Amino acid sequence: MAVSFWNNLLQITKNRVLQQRRVSLYNYTHSYEEHVIKKKLKQFTGGSINLSKDGNGIGVLTLNNPRLMNAFTGTMMLELQEKVTELENWKEGKGLIIHGAENTFCSGSDLNIVKAVSLQDGVNMCMFIQNTLTRLMRLPLISVALVRGKAVGGGAELTTACDFRLMTPGSEIRFVHKLMGLVPGWGGATRLVQLVGSRNALKLLSGALKVDPERAVHLGLAEEILPSSDETGSLEEACTWLNQYTEGPADVIQAMKKVVIAGRELHLEAALREEKDIFATLWGGPANVQALAQRAKHK
Amino acid sequence: MAVSFWNNLLQITKNRVLQQRRVSLYNYTHSYEEHVIKKKLKQFTGGSINLSKDGNGIGVLTLNNPRLMNAFTGTMMLELQEKVTELENWKEGKGLIIHGAENTFCSGSDLNIVKAVSLQDGVNMCMFIQNTLTRLMRLPLISVALVRGKAVGGGAELTTACDFRLMTPGSEIRFVHKLMGLVPGWGGATRLVQLVGSRNALKLLSGALKVDPERAVHLGLAEEILPSSDETGSLEEACTWLNQYTEGPADVIQAMKKVVIAGRELHLEAALREEKDIFATLWGGPANVQALAQRAKHK
Amino acid sequence: MAVSFWNNLLQITKNRVLQQRRVSLYNYTHSYEEHVIKKKLKQFTGGSINLSKDGNGIGVLTLNNPRLMNAFTGTMMLELQEKVTELENWKEGKGLIIHGAENTFCSGSDLNIVKAVSLQDGVNMCMFIQNTLTRLMRLPLISVALVRGKAVGGGAELTTACDFRLMTPGSEIRFVHKLMGLVPGWGGATRLVQLVGSRNALKLLSGALKVDPERAVHLGLAEEILPSSDETGSLEEACTWLNQYTEGPADVIQAMKKVVIAGRELHLEAALREEKDIFATLWGGPANVQALAQRAKHK
Repeated sequence: MAVSFWNNLLQITKNRVLQQRRVSLYNYTHSYEEHVIKKKLKQFTGGSINLSKDGNGIGVLTLNNPRLMNAFTGTMMLELQEKVTELENWKEGKGLIIHGAENTFCSGSDLNIVKAVSLQDGVNMCMFIQNTLTRLMRLPLISVALVRGKAVGGGAELTTACDFRLMTPGSEIRFVHKLMGLVPGWGGATRLVQLVGSRNALKLLSGALKVDPERAVHLGLAEEILPSSDETGSLEEACTWLNQYTEGPADVIQAMKKVVIAGRELHLEAALREEKDIFATLWGGPANVQALAQRAKHK
Repeated sequence: MAVSFWNNLLQITKNRVLQQRRVSLYNYTHSYEEHVIKKKLKQFTGGSINLSKDGNGIGVLTLNNPRLMNAFTGTMMLELQEKVTELENWKEGKGLIIHGAENTFCSGSDLNIVKAVSLQDGVNMCMFIQNTLTRLMRLPLISVALVRGKAVGGGAELTTACDFRLMTPGSEIRFVHKLMGLVPGWGGATRLVQLVGSRNALKLLSGALKVDPERAVHLGLAEEILPSSDETGSLEEACTWLNQYTEGPADVIQAMKKVVIAGRELHLEAALREEKDIFATLWGGPANVQALAQRAKHK
Repeated sequence: MAVSFWNNLLQITKNRVLQQRRVSLYNYTHSYEEHVIKKKLKQFTGGSINLSKDGNGIGVLTLNNPRLMNAFTGTMMLELQEKVTELENWKEGKGLIIHGAENTFCSGSDLNIVKAVSLQDGVNMCMFIQNTLTRLMRLPLISVALVRGKAVGGGAELTTACDFRLMTPGSEIRFVHKLMGLVPGWGGATRLVQLVGSRNALKLLSGALKVDPERAVHLGLAEEILPSSDETGSLEEACTWLNQYTEGPADVIQAMKKVVIAGRELHLEAALREEKDIFATLWGGPANVQALAQRAKHK
């Protein structure tokens, strides 16, 4: 009886941990009404967000609105939310690459929205996107922003919701918000401080500095400069780079991302407890048993 | 009606965010009685803290007690508090440079105070200065410690309350506390861990290491080594450096500093919400409207 | 009367701060029963953990099970806990070096345990070790993992519980957990994120990358590459390196480590208050008084 009690307890823990986080940063307690902003966003159409998933557990998300430097229309914001939900439910998923169609990454919001919406709508839109990007950041997938061309404004903010950034020669990340009389609002300032520290974040933001690939690597904002600049070539190279980290069973890779999320979001003691819970989901599991068996054979 | 409710809510948020933080780290709930320690500090006179503010929104704070390597007397501690209050209320302010008179930065507390005060007074003095330096650190201004000569002991601690440090050739930052049988008490240890990480902080503190400009840049403790070593030349160079980051409207620059403060002090979700609130104070504001208009013209 | 009240209050604070932290991360409220897991661990015998303490306040902890690459048997886990308790009570202690017997560091858990214990035992073991390593990490001693040969799996995790890592030529740190179908569970993932940031931690963990000394130094995972590779030579060099940071009175060095612990574990305001409390334990103390007297003499 004691054992079955224990097993139940462990199963509950396992389920809790395996369940992907879908916590909403904003909900009705923050005066945020999702259905209202969704209705509004539907009015601003154009472009699309495409998701393809391969057999190796790598997803490719394409921001597709090349006429406007892949800027987000309202319907693209809605589609991004749908794709994130799809990725949260992808049991075999291990990695994700986000890139822009053709030769640029993304320039943030379509200015047609910006000009048309009230302050109230603007803040609601901000909460809608922060909700989506926070869920994107917490996906149990190793995520890469492949930056070809320009990632500016909201586009620069989007890159910081990924675990890694790879840049092609001549590409650029730039937080231009100051020049628009704004600060970031998609969570990009918060995430930039986490990525490069408050000193560097303050310089990039208050100087609206152009960050070329060399500088990005130096700052730790990007991992590597890829050799190719074209869509096909750079996408292939980004896939190869990502494969180094996604080889192996999906549950192990997903657990690895989860312990890192815990480490970066929680304080020491909470992160340690989460690490223990995630560890428990794998201990004695199929991948672990197989590895132990192979070790024994090699002896 | 719904709209006016919303607008009121936004206005309240706006006021809350625009209001500079004047939270006291210590107050009567910490057995801290400010009027008692202020009375005591008044007895230790000498030197002064001077503040000049230029038309471009740059303030220059001078630690002026060159006879004692610009060490803080009691009245200088009181004056620093006053100047911080003045800077919190400076609506047009965007940047701040702190430096020492003549050819050194600051050597911490005047030893005459140190020798004269009891343990109780010492701890009270520590709370008084931590209160002031925490407010200094949270000023909505981009702040630079210009280190000419030596920043030692409390002087080294003071540099860490600024966003950036610029050093002149031959200058030095040194946490000498160990050699005085002490640890930092002005908050310098806490802020140093944040700036350079716990590994490097432990080395600098427990080794009482002299940090020259090259090493400081390597550690990320300083941004740059300025060409000039004299007061006028280095101050001019520091101003030019700072101008890269302070160009633009004061409310935008101040908001930029605020999002970075949120990112470094708060956990992820709280920082994201703060970023959203700060964003809301600028959206549709004069700088934003003007930028959008200019964009439209260029099309 | 007011003064004696104050002195009492300060004495209480002093005691609270001087007292080493022995907080258990896990206790009965976490369904953790220490006596049960200790009984189980006693069944897996072999190897030993040896502690020697020199007159300069430097302790050397040797993981001694060379037949199994110094892997931890059950009794070694129990002995590590005992040695950590001994170190917590070492009033004269200032530094600690952890290394493995002969020519390797440690390969984690003895696989005989891993194969023999249930999921319930595995999780209990994980909590037992996390408790010990968290106390190790919080020792008021400056700690160094001297990595000769290989630190893999749990061995790699153990190195992250020290303040610093020194590596000998040809040595290696490797989080091989993925290859065993696992994530770290001894707290190594959490601590690795703190040490090298979430980007680098995710790469090292999900790629199960071999980290050689050059790469470790580049990542900030190791401080230096020692010249010698043999046990005696490298231990001597590690001692010399550590001496730079442990010179001085034990209470001052211990306080220095404590302010750094506060800075890395607590949020800004809590860390500042802790710094003030630790400062108060030294102000007017013997080392401080002696330093002030010497200063006066030199004038």
